[in-house]
Amino acid sequence: MHDETAVEPTAPCEGGTGPAGGRSGKPGAVLFYSKFDDPVEWGAVLKSELPDLDFRVYPDVGDADEIRTVLAWQPPPGFFEPYRNLTLVVNLGAGIDSLAGRADLPDVPISRLSDSGMIALMRSYVLFSVIRYARNIPDFEAAMRVKEWRYIHPTPLHRIKVGVMGLGHLGAAVASSLAQAGFDVRGWDQAKKAIPGVNCHSGAELASFLSDVEILVNMLPLTPSTRGMIGREVFEAVPRGAKFVNASRGLIVDEPALVEALRTGQIGAATLDVFWTEPLPAEHPFWAMENVLITPHLASITVPEAAARDVAESIRRVAAGQGPLHLTEPQRGY
Amino acid sequence: MHDETAVEPTAPCEGGTGPAGGRSGKPGAVLFYSKFDDPVEWGAVLKSELPDLDFRVYPDVGDADEIRTVLAWQPPPGFFEPYRNLTLVVNLGAGIDSLAGRADLPDVPISRLSDSGMIALMRSYVLFSVIRYARNIPDFEAAMRVKEWRYIHPTPLHRIKVGVMGLGHLGAAVASSLAQAGFDVRGWDQAKKAIPGVNCHSGAELASFLSDVEILVNMLPLTPSTRGMIGREVFEAVPRGAKFVNASRGLIVDEPALVEALRTGQIGAATLDVFWTEPLPAEHPFWAMENVLITPHLASITVPEAAARDVAESIRRVAAGQGPLHLTEPQRGY
Repeated sequence: MHDETAVEPTAPCEGGTGPAGGRSGKPGAVLFYSKFDDPVEWGAVLKSELPDLDFRVYPDVGDADEIRTVLAWQPPPGFFEPYRNLTLVVNLGAGIDSLAGRADLPDVPISRLSDSGMIALMRSYVLFSVIRYARNIPDFEAAMRVKEWRYIHPTPLHRIKVGVMGLGHLGAAVASSLAQAGFDVRGWDQAKKAIPGVNCHSGAELASFLSDVEILVNMLPLTPSTRGMIGREVFEAVPRGAKFVNASRGLIVDEPALVEALRTGQIGAATLDVFWTEPLPAEHPFWAMENVLITPHLASITVPEAAARDVAESIRRVAAGQGPLHLTEPQRGY
Repeated sequence: MHDETAVEPTAPCEGGTGPAGGRSGKPGAVLFYSKFDDPVEWGAVLKSELPDLDFRVYPDVGDADEIRTVLAWQPPPGFFEPYRNLTLVVNLGAGIDSLAGRADLPDVPISRLSDSGMIALMRSYVLFSVIRYARNIPDFEAAMRVKEWRYIHPTPLHRIKVGVMGLGHLGAAVASSLAQAGFDVRGWDQAKKAIPGVNCHSGAELASFLSDVEILVNMLPLTPSTRGMIGREVFEAVPRGAKFVNASRGLIVDEPALVEALRTGQIGAATLDVFWTEPLPAEHPFWAMENVLITPHLASITVPEAAARDVAESIRRVAAGQGPLHLTEPQRGY
């Protein structure tokens, strides 16, 4: 039998300044799994923080019992079963819906990423999407196709009502940047929030929040209570012709209801980064709708060089018996 | 003969707190001329500041000798000739190129507008244009046309080099907002400038400024020295495939050189709000270029309710014998 404490005697806590190790005084091996993120870049930036790190890239796992930390993005069902000595899971992104409530994941802390690069990308995606509607760009693109100079007097930004649903980590950053850009921003979250420059609603105030939103941005996390939450009722609660931006998760939106609302003009246009099925199937009606802009799920990605310091610190902390940075609450879904 | 000082005796200066009057103790009449701005809105917002204001809209001038202030945007040649008692010209926008060096304009102070609404609109236009390239949106639009989910891993914003030419009032605001959004921003201006977060070049440092710019934004004022300044040499000085955004004035750009650079791919794409001839003629090659986004000269407009307080204050100050706010230097062109 493999007895860890006998094989690797416990070392004194090194105060988190170097590689220290959970039950063993060493951080153990790190396993990397992602179809989107670059393992070479991640290995390099992590080793600049933790030079002795044993960094392994799936499927080259080696001895599964040596894996203490998994860095993963959307691992398949059953992925975690072989790793019996896991002490930390780092989600290579913000939303942990692919990790919450899994039968194969033991009770270890799940840390999400929270890097400035990821936040900057998300802010840029939503700023782009909102300004595009605020500045009538689709109208000018249509005018270009017929070589027509079609002047539309701009609406001052402070008269354009933008609503952000979901005021968590990324949602709050997005709402702030929209307010700083000059928009009239209101937000809604299940919980009470306070964000400078943003008129925050919560809980049962959803209907009043939606009543005058001209551009609605979904930044909710995907949880059992938000699944399918943005559907016909929400689309009918906003003023006719309102625009919709989804930079969060496809499953929060009732897609058939959105298709219908876009067809009737109740929703004037949509910018969609996420979908029920990704890649979005070629036969999906969104592809053929002139008032839909589709991007392939990249509103925000992790930027390793910005995130590596936090990940290394989480590995050190867990090895020293402390909690990681950016600990999530999987039972709440974020 | 009409002798103003005899007809309207000089009143004591009222300290700029109410309608006071130049040589006469009253501000005289204000004449409004613009093909773009709304005279009804301007009259209303100015009267909320100056209730007794005699506000006239061209061509209903009345007695030309009573006109002391002209609020104008691009008045035609000879426009100012009838107004012999002018004490102030307010340019209904930022760039004063249509007012500088005119034979019909007597030596009166020219005040430009500087309102938060105009700045917010300009920032939004440039943010939109730059983010659109930074986030590969034209590629996704092309992929949409063939219903293809074409993933492109995003480049972290801090690795994207954006250059702003012209760091005046609006240029500095634009450069700052790009830096705040997370881009690697450098700027160039004829004069030395210092803007937090922006690597500022000046004068002869133009070539080094241009050498690594991936997205070039023109925010220069149109003056005799900037006319035609952005041409073949500039387009060849930036890395192949760089993007170009012009939110300033068309005449600063050598349009045939830009067409050529867009055709060869030396300039990868352009977002253009301003042109040599506006409206842009239907036969202009820009209309047919897939890598050009055309907007009809509205990157930034004046927002009357935000600007009216400053205009009213300028009218009061000039009536009291002081200089107006936001005084320009027409001999320098801005």
